[in-house]
Amino acid sequence: MLINNIAYTTIWYDSNNALVNIIDQRLLPHEFVIKKLRTIDDFCFAIKAMQVRGAPLIGVTAAYGLAVALADDASSTAEDVFAKQLIATRPTAMNLVWAVNRIRKLIATYPEDEKARVALAEADKIRQEDIAICEQIGINGLELIDTLYQQKQKTINILTHCNAGWLATVDWGTALAPIYKAHFAGLPIHVWVDETRPRNQGASLTAFELAEQGIDHTVITDNTGGHLMQHDQVDLCIVGSDRTSANGDVCNKIGTYLKALAAFDNQIPFYVALPTSTIDWNIKDGIRDIPIEERDPAEVTHITGITDKGEITTVKLVKNSTAKNISFDVTPARLVSALITEKAVVEPNIESINQLKNTNENA
Amino acid sequence: MLINNIAYTTIWYDSNNALVNIIDQRLLPHEFVIKKLRTIDDFCFAIKAMQVRGAPLIGVTAAYGLAVALADDASSTAEDVFAKQLIATRPTAMNLVWAVNRIRKLIATYPEDEKARVALAEADKIRQEDIAICEQIGINGLELIDTLYQQKQKTINILTHCNAGWLATVDWGTALAPIYKAHFAGLPIHVWVDETRPRNQGASLTAFELAEQGIDHTVITDNTGGHLMQHDQVDLCIVGSDRTSANGDVCNKIGTYLKALAAFDNQIPFYVALPTSTIDWNIKDGIRDIPIEERDPAEVTHITGITDKGEITTVKLVKNSTAKNISFDVTPARLVSALITEKAVVEPNIESINQLKNTNENA
Repeated sequence: MLINNIAYTTIWYDSNNALVNIIDQRLLPHEFVIKKLRTIDDFCFAIKAMQVRGAPLIGVTAAYGLAVALADDASSTAEDVFAKQLIATRPTAMNLVWAVNRIRKLIATYPEDEKARVALAEADKIRQEDIAICEQIGINGLELIDTLYQQKQKTINILTHCNAGWLATVDWGTALAPIYKAHFAGLPIHVWVDETRPRNQGASLTAFELAEQGIDHTVITDNTGGHLMQHDQVDLCIVGSDRTSANGDVCNKIGTYLKALAAFDNQIPFYVALPTSTIDWNIKDGIRDIPIEERDPAEVTHITGITDKGEITTVKLVKNSTAKNISFDVTPARLVSALITEKAVVEPNIESINQLKNTNENA
Repeated sequence: MLINNIAYTTIWYDSNNALVNIIDQRLLPHEFVIKKLRTIDDFCFAIKAMQVRGAPLIGVTAAYGLAVALADDASSTAEDVFAKQLIATRPTAMNLVWAVNRIRKLIATYPEDEKARVALAEADKIRQEDIAICEQIGINGLELIDTLYQQKQKTINILTHCNAGWLATVDWGTALAPIYKAHFAGLPIHVWVDETRPRNQGASLTAFELAEQGIDHTVITDNTGGHLMQHDQVDLCIVGSDRTSANGDVCNKIGTYLKALAAFDNQIPFYVALPTSTIDWNIKDGIRDIPIEERDPAEVTHITGITDKGEITTVKLVKNSTAKNISFDVTPARLVSALITEKAVVEPNIESINQLKNTNENA
């Protein structure tokens, strides 16, 4: 998708220099900087410090991280260490574990001197697949938006929380993929963008993406969506997922549950867009069992923006109080209208979700 | 209550200089500055720019504003203009209209040269009453906290949204009054403080109040309460109200509705603490009929804090996007466990609320 009218993806391998390029998302929307990742520490820092974020992009970054690290040392001891380091960066995103395990499973059968090459090819493949998967999520989600538009014959107002756009994936995004597809199809849409405290991925990334692509949108505080829904100003919600339990509970950025409650209370469809790689087949009760990351309280007590002199500056918002920074919450399946995956739009229950598993295994 | 271990109220008349002192709440928690209000424009600016805020304090400030302005010109034309100017400052808070009308009704029977004196005495009376009313709300609410403590025999975790503390009133607060009473009674309590974007009255004012008083608390983003409630980390919620309809719908800071939904979904008591002066007897459907203030989008796109060099600085959070800034939402009565008023704790329905009206009229 576009930045300054040039088409980018969030991550790409540079074979001449044996390194990986990423967009440093901590600096957006104020500065656009491409970072080069060369060592396992570079990759771990990029994920942990959220230079890259979003479950699908975390997965692809981890895949490249393992591949690049194996080029230095492909011993089984080193592989173990690299994998553990990568998986320890962030506990919630399912795709992180999924991508690392997928590569390890594949390279297990190769001799040591071929592991790095095979891992890199697989990382490239995961990256390409992610683009195709997200585009297909867009196509599947477009149908839902189009159906609503055919009924209502007016601008469709879509609320989204956090950033599940192309910046959270390689391209297209998950929650935003149907929005891009609707925009390209000429449907009149307007997006309510939750700012998404504490790290403001909505205000910083989703709003930035949509502005760069020329899609009508408005930034609101996380407190506002309920009021808009009460007053018929939201036609549907679409969010992403960092981990989805086998019964359809959805773990996504903190505050998603509150929007799902409001959508349910106002009979507004609440969709979750996700690649099937975010499904954790081992978890049947998401609220009880999905591990929830807790991050530095400074992300709550401090915030970064740009001054009127153009300086990126961090300011403190509280005086002598401590804060707690829980990164994700779990929305129970009963509040979710449907899951939009690359394979199908399914109901959030064990039986429907299991059908995705079978197609996956046959593929 | 305390600031730097000195007991303050938010507003007091200085008879030697015929002016009114307020704490400039826009600068808290970083700077503590007392402002002097002398002219009708000073008072209108103080309310509109939120140097003072909180429905009860807005009412008291408007009462003093009218009284001080009448000392300059007590003609009926001037009185009309002053009243209109004051009422136009903010549309949602019921106490603003209530306080101005109360004074006008009283002075109507006095000759022009006595109106200012009578108005000032009445403003003083409203101020004193506000202190007594808030303390009584505290006493009534303490019973609810104490009952829960007797059942649970552990630290009671209370979630609050925005600032309905002593800084929103003259002293004691509404939602925080029961918390102060519980603290003084030695009950073990801990308060979850929603930061309350966009103006962060939770992080700036509620956290500051509680810290100055030595009450255990933690600042959280507005997104976090639902997760905490799912995980048994909230025992009850208490919020304030800017206007309460005759059927018990509660208009309070934007985002209150989302917390009420989460409390209801997790069977957690959701209390609203309010002086009966916030009840709008003419409104029977709060969601449809309570006027909702919309403020400058810059309050969403920009935020003010303090740099590590100690400079109060405003930073911009978005790049090229517009924002919408809706200040209040309405929580339907069905989600409210009870209304804690100075007269009684009542159920949020027409019959129960009407009993408050009768006591008021007999008083």
